[in-house]
Amino acid sequence: MARNGSYVSEAVIRRMPKYYRYLEDLEKTGVERVSSKELSQRMGLTASKIRQDFNCFGGFGQQGYGYNVSDLKKEIMKILGLDRTYNVIIVGAGNIGQALANYTGFEKEGFFIKALFDINPKLIGMSIRDIMIYDLDSLEDFLAKNPIDIAVISTPKDKAQEVADRLTRNGIKSIWNFAAIDVAVPRGVIAENVHLSDSLYTLSYRIRESLE
Amino acid sequence: MARNGSYVSEAVIRRMPKYYRYLEDLEKTGVERVSSKELSQRMGLTASKIRQDFNCFGGFGQQGYGYNVSDLKKEIMKILGLDRTYNVIIVGAGNIGQALANYTGFEKEGFFIKALFDINPKLIGMSIRDIMIYDLDSLEDFLAKNPIDIAVISTPKDKAQEVADRLTRNGIKSIWNFAAIDVAVPRGVIAENVHLSDSLYTLSYRIRESLE
Repeated sequence: MARNGSYVSEAVIRRMPKYYRYLEDLEKTGVERVSSKELSQRMGLTASKIRQDFNCFGGFGQQGYGYNVSDLKKEIMKILGLDRTYNVIIVGAGNIGQALANYTGFEKEGFFIKALFDINPKLIGMSIRDIMIYDLDSLEDFLAKNPIDIAVISTPKDKAQEVADRLTRNGIKSIWNFAAIDVAVPRGVIAENVHLSDSLYTLSYRIRESLE
Repeated sequence: MARNGSYVSEAVIRRMPKYYRYLEDLEKTGVERVSSKELSQRMGLTASKIRQDFNCFGGFGQQGYGYNVSDLKKEIMKILGLDRTYNVIIVGAGNIGQALANYTGFEKEGFFIKALFDINPKLIGMSIRDIMIYDLDSLEDFLAKNPIDIAVISTPKDKAQEVADRLTRNGIKSIWNFAAIDVAVPRGVIAENVHLSDSLYTLSYRIRESLE
């Protein structure tokens, strides 16, 4: 539901992080104002489409000169739920799990990785940037003692659903899944499935298209 | 350009890999036919939207009983450029680069990773699934001797543009970029930028929404 009570389409939701990224870049380089025209050029959308997008959330005060960068960024932060912090765990400490744990960018936006879990005895007991890798056997115990908002699944494909089931049975309400299958979750649980192949196939689509 | 000569929207292009994924799953489980209704339920789209999507590419013969799974999959494979093979290199053999090199799923779809490149002396000379990690200094030499279709950038953010420039100067026409900035490329070069944070912020959006 949007602020005005109406339904917000998937396409609009997916554009919000892109607006946010662009506004962050502008803010970092010291830009204070952005015109509708610049914003629409950068986003590859018409100015009217952008107004429509923003109107889903009540609209943001656009002055004669366009938008105030830091005000607009703050509004979009709130919409994206980035005005709070999240406790995160990662199940699967292989390459993807480790890459996510090593990346400090998410922390800057309020996503704090509290623990990793794995079944590999060589990994258990190690730590990545002071984040411990625990035995997967201790997952339930950990979740009982620590409030966790988001669980990342970065296990092999054939373990992902089983892990998702264990997570949701133990109170996890949001899953960010990197395994190459869509995990099924009970009603009331949010799952965001990342499919890197979708992005690769978009690239091969464009290569095919460019050669015609 | 679509087969009928008209423009295909970004949204349609982005949906094609999802159709492909779904049809692959159906084929694997031995399903031979899928009705428009099933397809539309699974995709979260109306049957008319799906027909519109397919019409961008000339439309696919839908019989009274719906679509033939393997025929439809083959058509979408062609559209996605998956009816050929691609030679791929990965620049940046850190966690993400190694995860991509270790993943065998892309190979099954015709994307063959031929080499990794890095500047870290500890990594140079090692190999991942028989794919060698070379010194980044030898990039130009390698590209002169090997026909490469796609270069993956999985370097730190601050090196990505420099690497993109080196790649395009040496004939690379397609870049799959995982660094946390959009790389700029010359006209005629295709860049697909992966922003994992967009997916994470979509998740936090839904969490925010679910708590309202």
